[in-house]
Amino acid sequence: MRVLGIDPGLRNMGWGIIDMDGPRLRHVANGVIRSGGGGDAALGARLSVLFRGLCAVIAEHAPDAAAVEQTFVNRDAVGTLKLGQARGIAVLAPAEAGIEVGEYAPNAVKKTVVGVGHAGKEQIQHMVRVQLPGVQFEGPDAADALAIAICHAHHLQGRAIRPARGVA
Amino acid sequence: MRVLGIDPGLRNMGWGIIDMDGPRLRHVANGVIRSGGGGDAALGARLSVLFRGLCAVIAEHAPDAAAVEQTFVNRDAVGTLKLGQARGIAVLAPAEAGIEVGEYAPNAVKKTVVGVGHAGKEQIQHMVRVQLPGVQFEGPDAADALAIAICHAHHLQGRAIRPARGVA
Repeated sequence: MRVLGIDPGLRNMGWGIIDMDGPRLRHVANGVIRSGGGGDAALGARLSVLFRGLCAVIAEHAPDAAAVEQTFVNRDAVGTLKLGQARGIAVLAPAEAGIEVGEYAPNAVKKTVVGVGHAGKEQIQHMVRVQLPGVQFEGPDAADALAIAICHAHHLQGRAIRPARGVA
Repeated sequence: MRVLGIDPGLRNMGWGIIDMDGPRLRHVANGVIRSGGGGDAALGARLSVLFRGLCAVIAEHAPDAAAVEQTFVNRDAVGTLKLGQARGIAVLAPAEAGIEVGEYAPNAVKKTVVGVGHAGKEQIQHMVRVQLPGVQFEGPDAADALAIAICHAHHLQGRAIRPARGVA
């Protein structure tokens, strides 16, 4: 089973893909889609770049599941609205490909990957490297996206162990 | 020239289309795309419904220009993030069709349509009816969307009168 993690941002959209083989995880690919920086480019054009970039990643790697981080704390209303716009694209792209999208708060991601909810960036990146040996990050947003994918993989493994609902 | 106005919302996405014929405006169509209510439906499925609904409206009516309201005031972070997600879809759909998207703050819409920046809902709907004789609203979100379209039409008319940049 292949899992896509997305760290949404209007400027930089981080993505990371891992394979689950029973309890083992394997790194497949990671990257950052850049929407073209400053306030000069029109919002529509920037959202299109992010949407098409994510659709291309999904078409190339064909993930079975996806998860997006749910961040909005410590931002003002303008920043939260911008992030929401990017997040809408991050959730739409897999949904349009028929892929279910999990959502995790940053503390849930940290708790799953590092073991505590208040871990720093470096601690997260260290644990991602431990769980995905040999991985090279295209940038910090890609590392965060891989952490989200790992969190979702652990959640899916936990769900697979429990009996499915409605099955005797 | 045909103008699409969109009033973004995660639950109800209002849209309205008008034609500009010189200084005259004419109502073409309006409606509301409903994403299927409560917290039960998955976010991805709801965003897909909104995206596909807007793409269908654009395919049917072929607008030349589009505008989206820029609201975020008086909402908490969770509400602002939700609205941002819907707004991302509202801007993406026309952008994916190659249509430039204008953005207006609610007060700018009110000032253009009613003449004052602090007008109430009923006053806006009254002035939309005055400017688009015979119009019937599918709901308040559709009326707001028509007001945004009118605002953008006036802005485009003003821009058309001024000489284009770079032209002697």
